[in-house]
Amino acid sequence: MKEIQSLQNPLVKKIGVLQNKSRERKKTGLFVLEGLRELQLAVKGNYFLDTILFQDGMVSEDKIRKLTEAFETPPQIVRLSKEVYGKLAYRKTTEGVLALVHDKSHSLETLSLATRNPLILIAEAPEKPGNIGALLRTADAAGLDAILIANPKTDLYNPNTIRSSVGCIFTNNIAVGSTSEIISFLKRADITCYCADLAASTTYTEVDFNAASAIVVGTEATGLSREWLDNSDQNIIIPMAGEIDSMNVSVSAAILIFEAKRQRGELRVRR
Amino acid sequence: MKEIQSLQNPLVKKIGVLQNKSRERKKTGLFVLEGLRELQLAVKGNYFLDTILFQDGMVSEDKIRKLTEAFETPPQIVRLSKEVYGKLAYRKTTEGVLALVHDKSHSLETLSLATRNPLILIAEAPEKPGNIGALLRTADAAGLDAILIANPKTDLYNPNTIRSSVGCIFTNNIAVGSTSEIISFLKRADITCYCADLAASTTYTEVDFNAASAIVVGTEATGLSREWLDNSDQNIIIPMAGEIDSMNVSVSAAILIFEAKRQRGELRVRR
Repeated sequence: MKEIQSLQNPLVKKIGVLQNKSRERKKTGLFVLEGLRELQLAVKGNYFLDTILFQDGMVSEDKIRKLTEAFETPPQIVRLSKEVYGKLAYRKTTEGVLALVHDKSHSLETLSLATRNPLILIAEAPEKPGNIGALLRTADAAGLDAILIANPKTDLYNPNTIRSSVGCIFTNNIAVGSTSEIISFLKRADITCYCADLAASTTYTEVDFNAASAIVVGTEATGLSREWLDNSDQNIIIPMAGEIDSMNVSVSAAILIFEAKRQRGELRVRR
Repeated sequence: MKEIQSLQNPLVKKIGVLQNKSRERKKTGLFVLEGLRELQLAVKGNYFLDTILFQDGMVSEDKIRKLTEAFETPPQIVRLSKEVYGKLAYRKTTEGVLALVHDKSHSLETLSLATRNPLILIAEAPEKPGNIGALLRTADAAGLDAILIANPKTDLYNPNTIRSSVGCIFTNNIAVGSTSEIISFLKRADITCYCADLAASTTYTEVDFNAASAIVVGTEATGLSREWLDNSDQNIIIPMAGEIDSMNVSVSAAILIFEAKRQRGELRVRR
């Protein structure tokens, strides 16, 4: 097995660049994940692994090998010295595992919806990786049929997005596209479009989410673009009653999504 | 007017210590806020200002003076050099204003509820200042009667809490106490206690939030303590349907709060 003890090693440098540069991720189609749980979820989500890197002593080689047994072409496995792992890892609590992973296509063309009556979330131009991560957590917990990112400002595989999603980036059905492309997609698929808008006069509890529905949220700073509001089937508002009336975008999205689930009778406790 | 151009100035050092040390904030009863909006909200919230510090050119002295006109004992106003302000300010986008402010008592004894039918949120031991900030934003937007922090792990005036609350720390009715103290308070006030618990079998939409209600949430990692669950009137769950089923605590709290508001008919659009 390959062992790396030097910070000057080309693979170590490559990982550093992929962690920091969205451009490089796009060019190579590779991204870096961190954590055993994240690795397990990526495997389960049928991501194709290029290389697994682990720090000896923090995680057993056996555990790593077991994870990759099912692969026809097993990934390269590399042992890292403590110093090298410490340099590459963002979190001190991760379990000594990093991986170089091939990204997936998240095009609208290949998006498949498992039901004819989907509930989906659309976020336009979310500013912060942390917000995307929180949206992905909610989308997973709600069991949404898909989450679409319109006009993204960062790529999906930004390390902060992966981290803040606590692995939900690997469990969701995600597509990315321009606002125009997504609006066309919704029209073709006959999905009703509910746009969150602070100027709307219809409360979100007054609409009927039982048919195929998309809940669309914009940024905290400026809300949704004109294009969304003009193409909306119904603009909706979460009425607020405070002095500042500012909620995190992932909070607003969750309130809307769980009202839709309540109306659909989808709030059953699993045992 | 006093002017400070040196990083060695005792007041500059004092502010640095208050920003960083919870212990020092507790000892002196002072904290530091940043931003014109935050300052305006603190004034409106009847906080007592000790000193306002501003960077000349970024904000006008007139604007600062106007803000403090109503005070019987006006705060000291200090002009800072660009270098000193740059050193003290956390955010580069703030408007050249810092203030040294006296904290308030947030004891349960002095907590007053404006209605006999309150809706309140209780968060036990929230781990991160950012989570407290997000909870405060939701509490403001929902117009909650109070938000209580049980067994806090950080003090309320941590700069990250103030910042992430986008000023909602100054607009909410906040009390802090131990879990035992808050449970006694709820019993005395005859407020029904709904504890969020992943092991509960009752869905949050099945309970009736119309009477005086407290929604209690724990940490993302471990949930609520035994003490809360044993003293709960009804444990409730947000049924999840994903693979990871992990939502941010502020997201869970918001889903519960807005369901309560829906049931209470409190979702009216203000115009």
